[in-house]
Amino acid sequence: MSQIIIKDDEVDIVIGALQSDLTSFMEEWRTVFSRFHLIIVQDPDLKGELQIPEGFNHNIYKKSDIDKVVGSSSTPISFSGYSCRYFGYLMSRKKYIISIDDDCTPAKDSNGNFIDAISQHIINLTTPATPFFFNTLYDPFVEGADFVRGYPFSLRSGVECGLSCGLWLNLADYDAPTQALKPELRNSRYVDAVLTVPSRTMMPVSGINIGFNTELVGPALVPAFRLGKEGKLRWETVEDIWTGMCVKVVCDHLRLGVKTGLPYVWRKERGDAVESLKKEWEGVKLMEDVVPFFQSLRLSEAAVTAEDCVAEIAASVKERLGASNTMFARAAETMVEWTKLWKRVKAQS
Amino acid sequence: MSQIIIKDDEVDIVIGALQSDLTSFMEEWRTVFSRFHLIIVQDPDLKGELQIPEGFNHNIYKKSDIDKVVGSSSTPISFSGYSCRYFGYLMSRKKYIISIDDDCTPAKDSNGNFIDAISQHIINLTTPATPFFFNTLYDPFVEGADFVRGYPFSLRSGVECGLSCGLWLNLADYDAPTQALKPELRNSRYVDAVLTVPSRTMMPVSGINIGFNTELVGPALVPAFRLGKEGKLRWETVEDIWTGMCVKVVCDHLRLGVKTGLPYVWRKERGDAVESLKKEWEGVKLMEDVVPFFQSLRLSEAAVTAEDCVAEIAASVKERLGASNTMFARAAETMVEWTKLWKRVKAQS
Repeated sequence: MSQIIIKDDEVDIVIGALQSDLTSFMEEWRTVFSRFHLIIVQDPDLKGELQIPEGFNHNIYKKSDIDKVVGSSSTPISFSGYSCRYFGYLMSRKKYIISIDDDCTPAKDSNGNFIDAISQHIINLTTPATPFFFNTLYDPFVEGADFVRGYPFSLRSGVECGLSCGLWLNLADYDAPTQALKPELRNSRYVDAVLTVPSRTMMPVSGINIGFNTELVGPALVPAFRLGKEGKLRWETVEDIWTGMCVKVVCDHLRLGVKTGLPYVWRKERGDAVESLKKEWEGVKLMEDVVPFFQSLRLSEAAVTAEDCVAEIAASVKERLGASNTMFARAAETMVEWTKLWKRVKAQS
Repeated sequence: MSQIIIKDDEVDIVIGALQSDLTSFMEEWRTVFSRFHLIIVQDPDLKGELQIPEGFNHNIYKKSDIDKVVGSSSTPISFSGYSCRYFGYLMSRKKYIISIDDDCTPAKDSNGNFIDAISQHIINLTTPATPFFFNTLYDPFVEGADFVRGYPFSLRSGVECGLSCGLWLNLADYDAPTQALKPELRNSRYVDAVLTVPSRTMMPVSGINIGFNTELVGPALVPAFRLGKEGKLRWETVEDIWTGMCVKVVCDHLRLGVKTGLPYVWRKERGDAVESLKKEWEGVKLMEDVVPFFQSLRLSEAAVTAEDCVAEIAASVKERLGASNTMFARAAETMVEWTKLWKRVKAQS
């Protein structure tokens, strides 16, 4: 892992602050985070000043900053709750963004060593991905690994990686029903692997612990799909699942890779799954339409950038799903607004 | 792992004997193998009597048995070298077949415990597979795991598993060029996971350490694709890669699963990679045509059994690849003969 040179100035760590006191969170990550520039976005619903310890290089964005940039008027884009981090994606000027939930701390590997999640994401993003044929020994670019017998040589150079999805130890990323049904369920299985998710395979991307290449897929990280009352608890949230499928479709179309596996983070408790269960299972139900939609989606040859792709996806959402649920119509509208906003803000930098 | 009840009489372990003295191989596997019925097929090119220690329940098949069943006349099917195990597949009357190369011994997991590869294959084959959406926490049916947030409930029951592909520690399954270029390369990474290879994703299946459900996919395990002089060294062999893609296409078409990952076996040295490298890289070159062929192959709705599927694959091989290389034409012919042979032999039982 230490072989890869990370240019620290190419990386922003974006933290969405859903709690005011980030002291213990920041202290636990200090040795890793202090090397990088941080963008901290305060949930616009969260009142008061953030508490952040000394010794970090950071920018903080609050509701007033969001209003200034986006305008508070008629935009369908919401940055409340977990979605506040998307404002950080918008403000970043770096090539790579890593984002980690503020209820996660560094995990340990199976030898008991703390995992530098940022370095692992950067490794995932800077080594090739292999989406067109599955390598049974997982990531062939890891030290000590290679392509197995039968892997075509013409595919061994791989393609660029757009998105790196990390995983979770302790409290895994289950939905409210699963967590409520199995309250004792904790993930303790450390799987020492990174793999490229094959082309045309859809997956539920979690926003808890991810890294991406902004130049390749930035505009596809869009806060488009929000349940009525969601946003403060992961197991009630589907915004990141939708976003992940957008990014996956974009990567498949542009012949880029999506990796999953390492790094792990340690997730602490937050919320009450049984309470969440009493709410409507709207997100769970909607996945039954969302997944087949993205699985069957094909973009046109005219779409050659992530922006183009998002525009085409938005049009398809409106056409194929818009009539069935206002949530979908709003998602399509938000995606269109987001690409405009992205273009405008990035042009100013 | 111990929770699943294995009906020992539903399992045959098929061993292709490429060496006469199986004593140390059998002794290393004794605690595992002695519970099951073994089918040992002697490479028809191997002279003399096999040496097998006492205490196993086994049938041995030799060249004379093969000739009796298949007929020695004009069949294009060859059972020489690694392909001798396919004769064992033909003779088995069990639901599940596990096959392990005779240069492999039990591996240890990351806690230093010996791995019961047979039990793990049976677990893989008897728990559902999830080929239609990728679960980021790998096999959701493993104890302590589940489906992650965003996984559609309608897909959580999964489908039956047709093929279980195990992996290798120590000498990994690289091709001759890779092994010759990196003679010191050994696989020491124990990845504690089983995953379903997504539908429509092709992979290079290795025949070193596999299990399959004969009732579901048996006839698709066909010894069809043989290089001129191959068969005694894995890194010169492509027969199993071809077979694996046949099985994967069949599983995708019949909505069955293929799993990969655990169990590992420990592979010992055999052969000289640099010597192999001096031979023609015919297999390596042919993969450039074989992989795109299988990736684009779609079977008709009329194909509802593995036999039907193999017949359609054979017809496509003949039509699309047959003219480019006699190897392909022969493979197509062999597949047709194999399904006839399979039908005839299985009808006699």
